[in-house]
Order: sequence, then C-alpha cells, then structure tokens
Amino acid sequence: MAKALPSRSENYSEWYNELVKKADLAENSDVRGCMVIKPYGYSIWEKMQQDLDRRFKETGHTNAYFPLFIPKSYLSKEADHVEGFAKECAVVTHYRLKNAEDGSGVVVDPEAKLEDELIVRPTSETVIWNTYRKWIQSYRDLPILVNQWANVVRWEMRTRLFLRTAEFLWQEGHTAHATKDEAIAETKQMLDVYAEFAEDIMGVPVVKGVKTESERFAGALDTYCIEALMQDGKALQAGTSHFLGQNFAKAFDVKFADKDGKLDLVWGTSWGVSTRLMGALIMAHSDDEGLVLPPNLAPIQVVIVPIYKGEEQLAQVSEKALEIQSALRKRGISVKFDNRDTHRPGWKFAEYELKGVPVRLALGARDLENGTVEVARRDTKEKNTYQLENIDQIVADLLEAIQSNIYNKAKSYRDEHITKVDSYEEFKEVLEKKGGFVSAHWDGTKETEAKIKEETKATIRCIPLDNKLEDGVCIYSGKPSTQRVLFAKAY
Amino acid sequence: MAKALPSRSENYSEWYNELVKKADLAENSDVRGCMVIKPYGYSIWEKMQQDLDRRFKETGHTNAYFPLFIPKSYLSKEADHVEGFAKECAVVTHYRLKNAEDGSGVVVDPEAKLEDELIVRPTSETVIWNTYRKWIQSYRDLPILVNQWANVVRWEMRTRLFLRTAEFLWQEGHTAHATKDEAIAETKQMLDVYAEFAEDIMGVPVVKGVKTESERFAGALDTYCIEALMQDGKALQAGTSHFLGQNFAKAFDVKFADKDGKLDLVWGTSWGVSTRLMGALIMAHSDDEGLVLPPNLAPIQVVIVPIYKGEEQLAQVSEKALEIQSALRKRGISVKFDNRDTHRPGWKFAEYELKGVPVRLALGARDLENGTVEVARRDTKEKNTYQLENIDQIVADLLEAIQSNIYNKAKSYRDEHITKVDSYEEFKEVLEKKGGFVSAHWDGTKETEAKIKEETKATIRCIPLDNKLEDGVCIYSGKPSTQRVLFAKAY
Repeated sequence: MAKALPSRSENYSEWYNELVKKADLAENSDVRGCMVIKPYGYSIWEKMQQDLDRRFKETGHTNAYFPLFIPKSYLSKEADHVEGFAKECAVVTHYRLKNAEDGSGVVVDPEAKLEDELIVRPTSETVIWNTYRKWIQSYRDLPILVNQWANVVRWEMRTRLFLRTAEFLWQEGHTAHATKDEAIAETKQMLDVYAEFAEDIMGVPVVKGVKTESERFAGALDTYCIEALMQDGKALQAGTSHFLGQNFAKAFDVKFADKDGKLDLVWGTSWGVSTRLMGALIMAHSDDEGLVLPPNLAPIQVVIVPIYKGEEQLAQVSEKALEIQSALRKRGISVKFDNRDTHRPGWKFAEYELKGVPVRLALGARDLENGTVEVARRDTKEKNTYQLENIDQIVADLLEAIQSNIYNKAKSYRDEHITKVDSYEEFKEVLEKKGGFVSAHWDGTKETEAKIKEETKATIRCIPLDNKLEDGVCIYSGKPSTQRVLFAKAY
Repeated sequence: MAKALPSRSENYSEWYNELVKKADLAENSDVRGCMVIKPYGYSIWEKMQQDLDRRFKETGHTNAYFPLFIPKSYLSKEADHVEGFAKECAVVTHYRLKNAEDGSGVVVDPEAKLEDELIVRPTSETVIWNTYRKWIQSYRDLPILVNQWANVVRWEMRTRLFLRTAEFLWQEGHTAHATKDEAIAETKQMLDVYAEFAEDIMGVPVVKGVKTESERFAGALDTYCIEALMQDGKALQAGTSHFLGQNFAKAFDVKFADKDGKLDLVWGTSWGVSTRLMGALIMAHSDDEGLVLPPNLAPIQVVIVPIYKGEEQLAQVSEKALEIQSALRKRGISVKFDNRDTHRPGWKFAEYELKGVPVRLALGARDLENGTVEVARRDTKEKNTYQLENIDQIVADLLEAIQSNIYNKAKSYRDEHITKVDSYEEFKEVLEKKGGFVSAHWDGTKETEAKIKEETKATIRCIPLDNKLEDGVCIYSGKPSTQRVLFAKAY
C-alpha cells in the first residue's frame, strides 16, 4: 500500500481524488466520464441502497423498471424539461455495426439508422409519464407510488469521481396523485426520508430547504433539497424532491376520472439521490489518513489484527481472535480477522485507517497473558486497552459512540459555518476566507442571483424550510427582503 | 379485472403474452423492444435477485459496477467475441442535441460527433478485462471474484416480454484466476449455484450440461448451461457459466507474476442469469387461470379475503383476519388482507388466482361461528376447511407442500419429456408430436448439427454433465458416436 495522501489543507481536491482511488472506492474508466465503482466502494453504496429501499417501502413505495432509452421526441413535450435535459446527452443513432471492408475492425452500418433517435435517459419523467397514461384511468388507480434503481447518463464535460460523472447510479421515485395537497405532502415526506437517512445513517447533517426558481428541476413547480457542507466549506446538494404540479400530466395527457366521473390532470412528484452521496460521505468525514466511515455504512465495522512472532503465537492469538469475532458477529457486527502473513501489523493498521474501518482490535501474546485487547477507534484515533470480558459489549457501545461522534463533529463544523452577513463586502469576505453557508437577505430576483453568482461563484443553495421571516435589505441590490437565504459555493 | 386468458392448449404463445400483461408483470413500452417491468413483476425479480445475491456472496463474490458504454474498438480485440456481439447493438454516435432551427423541437448536433463510437454494453467482458489489466499484477491480486447487477442491450429484431427484449436486466459475474483448474472449478461452482436456485427457489428442474461449439458463448472455451423445459415442450436456457480460458486476458494483455516472478496470462470465467428467468418461471408452472408462483418467490404468499354482509360483519371478520395475519407474519410469511369494499369476493378470488398467490384464506360470518376458515391452494386448486387453532402452522406447512409440489409436478413433466430415439424419423416424430428433450446420438460435427437445425428447428441444448458414454450411431449421418446429446426446440 503506497500511502501518502495529499493533506486536505494542502490540496483538498487532490486529497479527495487520491482518497477515492487509494481506498479502492472507484476509479476512472477508459470510457470518457464513466467510472468503475470498485468492490469496496460498491459495498458502501449497497448499504446505502438497502437502507433507503427499506425506507421507501415503509412509506408505501414499490420498485419497477422503465426503459433505458427515451425517444428524442419525448423530450420536447415538456417545455422546461427539454431546456434542462435535452442538451448534453448520449444519443443512439444506429442499431448495428458491420465488418469494415478494409478488415480493420467494425464500423457503424449506415443502413441501420434510427428514424427517431434514442436518448440514454438523463432522468425518466418523460418515459414514465408516457407509461402512466396507460395505467391511470380513474381515482381508483391513484396514487401510484413507484421507485426505480437505475443508471442515468448526462454528458458532463468536467467529471469527478462520484460527484459528477457522465454515467451514475441513482434511484428516482415517480409518484402520481389525485390532488395537489397529496402530491405536495409526498414531496415533503420524501425530503424527510432523505434528511433522516443522511443524518442517521451517513452522519451528515443537512439543511432542508427549497430551491429558487433558477435552481429548480427542469419541469418542476418546486424543488426541495437537502444541502450538506463539506470540510472545505463548499456545499453539496445531497438529494432533491420535486413537486411537478400537473406539468408532466399535461405534456403526456395523463388524466383521471374522479368519483363523480369528472376528468382532471394528475399531480406528480419525483425525487432522487445518487452515487453522489458517496462523494458527500467521503468529503464530510474523512481525514488526512484516509476514509472515516460511520459504522452504519461501514462494510467492515471491526478489524482484528494479530500481533505475533512465529506460528505458535499466531495459533494462540487466532483462537482468541476467532472467539471475539464470533461474539461480535452474534451481535450483528461485521468483523474481519486479518491473519495474512504477507503483511506486517503496521502496514495493516495504515491500510484499515485508509479504508475507514471504525474499530480496530490489536491482539498480541502479551494481551493473552493479561486477558486484554487494544481497541483503536478510527474517528478520534484514541487507543485504549480493555479486559477481554465483555469486549463485545464494549465494541457495540463504541460503534454507537462513533456513529454519534461523527455526526456531532460534522454538525458542529456545519453550525459554525453558517454565517449571517448584512453587506455584500462582508458576504464576499466570509465566502473567501471562511467558506460555508452565508445567510443573507436577497431581493428575490433572478437578476440579483445571477449577478452574485457571476461575481462570487456562490449560488443560493436553498431557502431553509424552517426560515423565520425577518425584514431586511438585499445585500446586493439594497431592495427590501423578507427573509434570509443560504448562499454557498457548491459542488 | 377483465380475465379470459386464452388457454394454453389453444394458443400457448398468446396465453403467455396475455398472462404477463394481465398479471401486471410487464408490458411493452413505446420504445422499440424495451419493456416496462411493472411493480408486481419487479417484486418477483427482486426476490430472485436477493436470493442469488446471497448465494454469490456466500461463494466469496462481491459486487462492483462497470461502465454502460463500451468503446467500439474494444469489441474487435477478441476475435470470436466481436463476431458474436458486435452486430445488433445500440450505437451512441453523438453527445449533444440542439434546438432545431425551424423550432420543431430538438435535433442531433452534428458538431457533437464521437470519434470512437460507443456501444451500449451487450455484455461486459471487454470493458471489465480492460479494467482487470490495471488491477492485476501479481498472484496476490488473484482471484478476483466480482459480480455486477446491470442492464444490457442487444438489438433483437423479434422481441417477447422477459424472453427476448432489446434491454434486459441481469447479473454478470466476471472472475480472474491464476490457474486453469481454479477457473474451471469456478465455472462449475456457479453452474451449481444457478441449478440449486432454479430448483429450490423457482421450483424449475434443470439439466446441467455443456454447450456444443456452435452454441458456445462468443469468446469462451466452454459454455456450461442449465436447461429447463416449458409446458409447451420447448426448452429454455436459464443460465450460463463460461470458462473463458485465457482469451480475454490475451486480448486485453492481462498478466500476473507468479510466486517465482514468472509472467503468465490470467484465466477467466463469466456467468449470468437475466430477467429471462421470469419467463421461465411463468411458463414452467402457470395454468389457464393465471400465474402459479412458488411460495419462495411469491411477493404475497397468503391473501385473506373477507366474506361479509354489512359493516358489522366486516368488523367481526376483520378482527379475526388481522389476528391470523399477525400470526402468519410472525412466521415470516407475507400476507395481504384484502378488505376493499369496491370488489366482491368472487372478483378477488379470480384476481389472486391470476396473480398466482399460493394460498387464499376465505373467512366469513359462518366461519367465525364455527371457528373455521376455508383454505384454498393455488397450485392444485384444492379447498379445505380448517379449525382456526394452529392455522399459522397449517398454512406454513401448506406453503412448504406447495413449493415441493410445484417442483415435483414440473419434474415429472420434464422427466416424461426426455425421449430416447435412435433414428432420424423417430427424432422428427417425437419433436413434432410430443416435444420436449430428445436424447439422440450425434456425430459431433457442426455440419450435422446445422443440418438438423435447418430441417427441424431443433438445436442441441446441451451435452448433459452426468451423461453416460455409450456407443451408437448418429441419427443423421450414421457415423459413430460415443454419447447421446439433448436436442429440443427452444426459446
């Protein structure tokens, strides 16, 4: 293991890139903008999926699967949607290759050209609402509460592992309702599901809010979001939930007969989180030694490293290590006993630090004599020696403590990095020197928002849902404002 | 619910198509050849995935994710592979759309043309072995035991829901080994995993065998398969496991240093099952009333239908029904209590028959008086009235009995439909009148195989692994043969 990550203070961006690769989470493929999610990274994503999927099902949703391809013509049906999504995308124009006449390999067969080109889905509202038209006749068919786990493609020019890739994995919920109120309630419910997942499972505190018009999903009436803060003071949008109104029902002619037989357009929502969450997880907690994983998402929660000289000592240590492993597994804790003789303990310590394993037990010959074990926690790097009795309880408690500590640490940092400012000078200074969210009055116009973005690269991340109304003046235009919004530079 | 499936004897093919749609399993999308897997169908697929995924992990595999797109040039690197897969596929040639100048919508931007076109993966050997080159240096990096759950696209001209669609869902395992023996053992192990899953979970008996050269996976040295028999006497390939030899290692230059530092090419396997299994499941067991699902894969294992007049009776029946539901759920049985007042019991009975729910409980006012409940099993359509005491145990036993019965019934049918023949006349007659597998001597040549296929549409499904060697003469050429092979018409 060649370690040596760049430090965060030195080069945060390089630190992130190197960490993702060295911790075996993901790597760039030779296919432009597409990543390979490696087994260790994928096992974290699987844990996210499982937990989210359970939450979706508990709130009444079922999974389904819709086509990868979207006819080009569908995209034009919803006017805002086409502006947002029909530009940078992968276009399938042919359906056959043939042998090159000069024997140099295969070439596209010009005879096999599609009449209506197909787009690789950048998001599935169009193909799904086109299907819902067939599923919905009466109020009895509503609500439809469907989710899909899928890959999507958006042809990004500048890509970064997990944060912005041409292909990424996500889930997209698409629901249809008889009333506006029900659809709005669904939109908010799923935002809460995301926020609870981010905080309780990922240990990442989030601000729940609503986007301004210019940051809204293309085709939505309202976009709700959860915004997280990374250690470099930049914000990251971790999930969105859209109230679509009747826009897609209108575009795809999806109507239902109410109890009195009257026809009306269906109300819709959509909501999604993606492998971008992996980026948020990595950047929120990790340090210069490597990943710091919350126990709730760690593929390996505890590693046991034997310290020994010679076969005989290894046999003795192994016996006790396997006992501990078994006791921990009975509690549902995932444990790895690393008895490889190809690497030294110090190398293993560094390796599991890099991989973010929350708890490390080191067990040596002297420990056996004393009936003890050395317990190291990854988050604080504290080490303590404990008696072996009740070690399973001690470790279980420690895992809970680590989960809380990781969240609390991120929350303190986040709370310290929400700064109220009342002038544009102060705004720019905070943005430059301190970073984080800047809470400031805004006049509510697109023009001001665009100017601030242009001049400072900061965008309005959201209008927090728990905002208090307060009279003030816009930091940029000086015009009256009724509430503060959260600005930040963002991923 | 508009019922009326065509009967199997009348029109098997129509029966299948209608059943898939009416039971809410899947439907054709407006995107050519692509299906929509509906929530009920997807929940069966999810159960298959969960069980298979557990088996993969128990045999040491981990999941990962590789790019959707394959550069066209990769396909040409393995000579056989390109012949098999580089023909009918979706080709991405452009990465941007733009507004049409006449305002008619969006058109492909000719400026955004890719230099090397991308193929939507029809299978991932090439992109994965291109990645393995970077992952493998030494014997210490081996074996690599990776699986991926993904969508793939093969541009099929004639499509059928689940059986043959342009896009389908599958898993593809790709492993890399230091020795030939280890790779062959892996290939066979995964075939066993598939066979056990098919028989124990799907209730579908399979023949394990090896493919002839002409039916082999493009790029493999050997293709192992499990072959199932459908109720119309046609065979269906339900899963394949390929021994790739060093072919892909050679094509992508994947070498490892052994303990002595000597460089050698890596040995490979790949293995997959797809949503095609849904087709096998449906066709193997279902009847003219609808789906018959094995309890191990039924999203709803038990439905309780209340029989009542008026609110008061419903309340009484509901109380008892919820008790039963709770007792069954404690045993891990999935139960639905259908108390909808919008549909009559008879309608519900037919609906759950169509959906294949293994056990139906009907509970009425008279049952409450007598302390009884009517229990109907879907597979045999038997009905019995039982005392309510121990109903949870009775139902649990019944579910096990149904799982066995479904398998045994399919196995009897399959065993009766393996017919030994010793002449071409007999061969054609059995194929035409009885169907099923025909066990016959074959001279081992491609030419004979092709002629028989051309004349009868029957292909060699496999050479069974448990075949006994026996001297004979080829039914077609009269040349000597050492063993029988299984022919059949197939999906």
